[in-house]
Amino acid sequence: MSFQNPVFIPGPTNMPECLRRACDMPTLDHRSSLFAEILHPARDGVRQVMKASDAEIFIFPSTGTGGWETAITNTLSRGDTVLAARNGMFSQKWIDMCQRHGLNVKIVEAAWGEGIPTDQFEEILTADKNHQIKAVLATHNETATGVLSDIAGVRAAMSAAQHPALLFVDGVSSIGSMDFRFDDWGVDVAVTGSQKGFMLPAGLGIAGFSRKAMDAAKTAGLPRTYFDIRDMSKGYAANAYPYTPAVGLLNGLKLACGMLLDEGLDAVFARHARIANGVRGAVEAWGLELCAVRPELYSDTVSAIRTPEGFDAGRIVSHASQNYRVAFGVGLGLVAGKVFRIGHLGSLTDVMTLSGIATAEMVMADLGLDITLGSGVAAAQEIYRSTAAPMVLAAE
Amino acid sequence: MSFQNPVFIPGPTNMPECLRRACDMPTLDHRSSLFAEILHPARDGVRQVMKASDAEIFIFPSTGTGGWETAITNTLSRGDTVLAARNGMFSQKWIDMCQRHGLNVKIVEAAWGEGIPTDQFEEILTADKNHQIKAVLATHNETATGVLSDIAGVRAAMSAAQHPALLFVDGVSSIGSMDFRFDDWGVDVAVTGSQKGFMLPAGLGIAGFSRKAMDAAKTAGLPRTYFDIRDMSKGYAANAYPYTPAVGLLNGLKLACGMLLDEGLDAVFARHARIANGVRGAVEAWGLELCAVRPELYSDTVSAIRTPEGFDAGRIVSHASQNYRVAFGVGLGLVAGKVFRIGHLGSLTDVMTLSGIATAEMVMADLGLDITLGSGVAAAQEIYRSTAAPMVLAAE
Amino acid sequence: MSFQNPVFIPGPTNMPECLRRACDMPTLDHRSSLFAEILHPARDGVRQVMKASDAEIFIFPSTGTGGWETAITNTLSRGDTVLAARNGMFSQKWIDMCQRHGLNVKIVEAAWGEGIPTDQFEEILTADKNHQIKAVLATHNETATGVLSDIAGVRAAMSAAQHPALLFVDGVSSIGSMDFRFDDWGVDVAVTGSQKGFMLPAGLGIAGFSRKAMDAAKTAGLPRTYFDIRDMSKGYAANAYPYTPAVGLLNGLKLACGMLLDEGLDAVFARHARIANGVRGAVEAWGLELCAVRPELYSDTVSAIRTPEGFDAGRIVSHASQNYRVAFGVGLGLVAGKVFRIGHLGSLTDVMTLSGIATAEMVMADLGLDITLGSGVAAAQEIYRSTAAPMVLAAE
Amino acid sequence: MSFQNPVFIPGPTNMPECLRRACDMPTLDHRSSLFAEILHPARDGVRQVMKASDAEIFIFPSTGTGGWETAITNTLSRGDTVLAARNGMFSQKWIDMCQRHGLNVKIVEAAWGEGIPTDQFEEILTADKNHQIKAVLATHNETATGVLSDIAGVRAAMSAAQHPALLFVDGVSSIGSMDFRFDDWGVDVAVTGSQKGFMLPAGLGIAGFSRKAMDAAKTAGLPRTYFDIRDMSKGYAANAYPYTPAVGLLNGLKLACGMLLDEGLDAVFARHARIANGVRGAVEAWGLELCAVRPELYSDTVSAIRTPEGFDAGRIVSHASQNYRVAFGVGLGLVAGKVFRIGHLGSLTDVMTLSGIATAEMVMADLGLDITLGSGVAAAQEIYRSTAAPMVLAAE
Repeated sequence: MSFQNPVFIPGPTNMPECLRRACDMPTLDHRSSLFAEILHPARDGVRQVMKASDAEIFIFPSTGTGGWETAITNTLSRGDTVLAARNGMFSQKWIDMCQRHGLNVKIVEAAWGEGIPTDQFEEILTADKNHQIKAVLATHNETATGVLSDIAGVRAAMSAAQHPALLFVDGVSSIGSMDFRFDDWGVDVAVTGSQKGFMLPAGLGIAGFSRKAMDAAKTAGLPRTYFDIRDMSKGYAANAYPYTPAVGLLNGLKLACGMLLDEGLDAVFARHARIANGVRGAVEAWGLELCAVRPELYSDTVSAIRTPEGFDAGRIVSHASQNYRVAFGVGLGLVAGKVFRIGHLGSLTDVMTLSGIATAEMVMADLGLDITLGSGVAAAQEIYRSTAAPMVLAAE
Repeated sequence: MSFQNPVFIPGPTNMPECLRRACDMPTLDHRSSLFAEILHPARDGVRQVMKASDAEIFIFPSTGTGGWETAITNTLSRGDTVLAARNGMFSQKWIDMCQRHGLNVKIVEAAWGEGIPTDQFEEILTADKNHQIKAVLATHNETATGVLSDIAGVRAAMSAAQHPALLFVDGVSSIGSMDFRFDDWGVDVAVTGSQKGFMLPAGLGIAGFSRKAMDAAKTAGLPRTYFDIRDMSKGYAANAYPYTPAVGLLNGLKLACGMLLDEGLDAVFARHARIANGVRGAVEAWGLELCAVRPELYSDTVSAIRTPEGFDAGRIVSHASQNYRVAFGVGLGLVAGKVFRIGHLGSLTDVMTLSGIATAEMVMADLGLDITLGSGVAAAQEIYRSTAAPMVLAAE
Repeated sequence: MSFQNPVFIPGPTNMPECLRRACDMPTLDHRSSLFAEILHPARDGVRQVMKASDAEIFIFPSTGTGGWETAITNTLSRGDTVLAARNGMFSQKWIDMCQRHGLNVKIVEAAWGEGIPTDQFEEILTADKNHQIKAVLATHNETATGVLSDIAGVRAAMSAAQHPALLFVDGVSSIGSMDFRFDDWGVDVAVTGSQKGFMLPAGLGIAGFSRKAMDAAKTAGLPRTYFDIRDMSKGYAANAYPYTPAVGLLNGLKLACGMLLDEGLDAVFARHARIANGVRGAVEAWGLELCAVRPELYSDTVSAIRTPEGFDAGRIVSHASQNYRVAFGVGLGLVAGKVFRIGHLGSLTDVMTLSGIATAEMVMADLGLDITLGSGVAAAQEIYRSTAAPMVLAAE
Repeated sequence: MSFQNPVFIPGPTNMPECLRRACDMPTLDHRSSLFAEILHPARDGVRQVMKASDAEIFIFPSTGTGGWETAITNTLSRGDTVLAARNGMFSQKWIDMCQRHGLNVKIVEAAWGEGIPTDQFEEILTADKNHQIKAVLATHNETATGVLSDIAGVRAAMSAAQHPALLFVDGVSSIGSMDFRFDDWGVDVAVTGSQKGFMLPAGLGIAGFSRKAMDAAKTAGLPRTYFDIRDMSKGYAANAYPYTPAVGLLNGLKLACGMLLDEGLDAVFARHARIANGVRGAVEAWGLELCAVRPELYSDTVSAIRTPEGFDAGRIVSHASQNYRVAFGVGLGLVAGKVFRIGHLGSLTDVMTLSGIATAEMVMADLGLDITLGSGVAAAQEIYRSTAAPMVLAAE
């Protein structure tokens, strides 16, 4: 009797049953007109969730990592320079990908727990008089540290430097859960996946391209076929795909976007913030600290929680799994063993979250940490009680 | 986004996904040999769960109420006398059914919160020298009050009185969750349904008949067709049914029994007791009392919790539903407004139960009851922590 | 790899996936207001499908047989006389039920393959000056013989005789597939189930009661509890149920009615007639005859096909099952061994039906009957080709 | 009411319900040990289906096209020469991919309808004394033309030429449906996807690498990250993945392999051949010809059927879709408009296939082609009748 408890990993998330069913479709001929009724609404939905008025949306049978590769290989050429900050595992991985593709990455090191240092970005971009830097890479939400960076600030730095580089944003664990403004922030490529804010199984890499990024694709020299947006564009124009699409996941994406937009993006973001506040209240009650060093960096989709010096945080994750069949996230990279993570995005209620908090308490107590049982729960209960919204029935 | 939280009603229970899928079958020809591969294993499984070595098991597209009617109409005749205690809503309803069928019911009144008064039963049966009483009706677990009665004691009373009456037991909210001993207790008809210990949707009325009860069916005079066990027996012999069976539910029942027997009935009962202990720990921490008046009456499938005088307990249920989308059970009949019920049977983990306890705390605090947030959770956490069993992986 | 081929039994039918999913619901608290949003729309939907403007609709966790018992036990008293024709297995079974409940059944024998002899009914009713006959029982579609009787004619006979008896109609295999007019025909109780025209799993017995039938319920003397419409009515008024409802099936029924009404009842009936015409075309091409003796008796939901003298028709059904994993219906009662049945109701397309016809051809050829392979298929193809309606896409 | 008829496209195929359910999993923590119990059995299963004793199996959230890219980018370097035949749309596309990655492709043109010209391969390889050719690309089953090429013959040509090139085989529409011998044929990289012989949704690109191919990966110079088998290998060693895996599809793949191996690969291949024979019998009865020019080239997974000169074969596909909601495959590339395709792989029975054949007949007759209704059906019926295997029940 497994799969009874919710998961508290920062994606894949708990999935609403209606989305699972939308994905679990019978076979549909993807060369028939029925496919167009799935493909285009899914792309339109993503566009709206990204707040992108006219971005081209590309969806690959892939993951967020494939989305990164889509961004890079379609816009850049061997030897191009890109600028990136390294403040967590996922920014680190994207940098590594660039290097493998023969790009020259100008890396700005930041503490894991800090956001993107926009002031340093501004300096570097201002100094780049010849515009060697072709793209700026920004990880909106560092899933490894629970840090939300300031993308508007990155764009402001670019503007201040009057720099023409493309702005690529990894929104894998932010889009659909926290505010993301493709147009307002002047994003050129936004990357995400199906398994976070969209509450779907993993399997789709999603990328939104600005007009400027589309233009860059015409001259980009990096080799590509699977992730080539030119083939994908040609397919779309014929209501088709350059290869067999993941029809079920696209159908799920269409519905997921519909659900998010029906609820209202602001309501979705508020819902995530409310759930996250409860978790943060519990962390404070436990006397622990977040990896994110300042409140304005706190992520509403994942909290990375520092455990006391000398304690291996990984034990929390394995003990929770072994003794309570509950999944939390381990620390990755530089913070491995130092933090454990509670994912709180996607399909999650206050009630479900309380069970995760209560489990974390039992686990920490079991492992000898100085935790008062019920203390985090009580803190979260206060927050949830004071913000609960009575249900309005359809019939009323 | 509904259906995210577990339900805490005393049935229908939370359903394991594998059972939902077993029920959700494509159409199968119920006159084909494939049906026999579902029907007979389901019946065998029920027999084992009831600890009945050779009872005849009848399964109707119906509910537990249909099971009661099956018991009565197949064994009794207009004007027959039966003995029953009235100590809750469900024993009350069964009495009413008997009266509608023209039976003469000798009713022993008991407090709602008490069990069946076996000593009074013994007295009455002993006094019934002419054996006017044809059947004794016993509600094993009173779902309305969370009271588990002593069926072995009822049988002992019958034995002491050397009374030949049939023993009918309503095991709707006990069978499959708490120990039930058809053979050892000399049960003649045991009644249950699909939506409690079997963790299935409602839709099956299940009855086990002893040899003696089968004999009674030959002469019973109450009219019947839909619930006639003679037609059903004839069908079984031909691997068939007297009318269209609920094939999917039967398939679910086959799997449910398999799951319970694979886990081991003792393990299943221990699991229910452990979950129930946590809930009872929370109730004590809240300073509240159970409707069941003594520990030996405590039910491991449902707790009816008394709220303070002057407080309408029904408000807890409606507020939990409205503000937290969590379902608890209302008080019924004589205890309406005086108790609310937490169902804790079927597919439920310690982690899920903590979310129900935490929700009850928020609700009671919201409604002005003097409850310390986190107090019940902490009490339950202690109980669950000290009894948690680490998972053993198949691979190990 | 089973369940790949469609079934061709006269119910349970092939089920649309959307209906299976509607039935496969997570647990919902049936005492909450959410239940009302399922129960009442399902009842309203049934009312419209029956063309009953103000009938009371009762839905039991049961089957059509339970619907028969609902009709009888709620309206009649021991010793009452009812009038019924016996022209097939299902009319026979209903008569048997009446007799078990102590009713006096005036039986009009008719050939199996004939419809209800309305002229004889008129004679008998006219002769019943004292109105001893309390109810007339009519099987609209005899599933055993594929015969559709003339219910308007039955009502006309009653009117001509100025007889006040109640009119009970078994519409199990007609309602939702062929025209049924509760109001126009002056039906007092209409009975059906979930697994035929509604394309759902078996598990619901459905009955519509006229005002006159509701009045009869006040004085009816037959004992009842499970099928008591008074308890059910009381429940409905509180958006509830007298016992645990089969919520998932009710949710499926709500959707099924919605689908039928959205398609339009006339379109639904025309669809069934078109599919049935193809089957009948094949039967004619094979040189075989239907059990139904005249075209106006032909059922659009099931065809009972007579096989040559001396040939055991049951072999067709078992051979089809064994060699081709296709389910046809056997002959029942008087026509056992003389007919096999092709069910063609519910969720079935022309394309699916052709596979059933092709299978029947292979089976009959295998068993040595003088059948030209492809002959029945060709006849049906001509009928389907000439009546195919091009799909209109939503997008167009 | 859509999705009722089977599809007859050459993949994605009709899916068994059990595989859909295996894919539709609740969220599982892919960093937990539970994931290892899915990942490794899935890889082992693929290995056995490919008849590869010790190939490394890589599975990407992707498609067969991603499998091609995996093969190329992990083993080759810019400027390398590869040898390939162009005899259909899919061999053409793979050639195009190589060219985009800066490879030098030596193309052998062959008629569309012909197989790989192994004699020409032998000549070219023999002439390549300096071993400029690093890899030979072979499309086992050309899905566009229904042509099965002789991979043993390609290997024989390489052996005769004593050429050390790697042998890459596209087995997308053959593996799991027709015999594929990784070891015996000396395949170095075999590529397939989830949506053909494995009967799953699209979404997995699958590649098997020989030891020699694994060695080539150490020095290959083409840039790659998403499809990098080094990262994937590292992940596997830790029971993990370099990014979020498509857990549900992997779980489906595990079960699909189990089903194929339980049935027995020879039985699976025989099943496909039997179904294909029926289709070919129908084609002959219609007086039409296959695109594949010789019987030894006939594919058992897809038949491309030539229509008369001057007739646009695409009309068959659109008319079938519009009028009968049945999906056939269009002609692609050089044979667009000249052929239509009937896919007959995966989860398909004789009975289902007859409905596809019958539909094709109606469509062709509707469009004025000279087709006798029922003729193809009768030819297929004869083939299916004479080869039908009676079902053996588990219970017997």
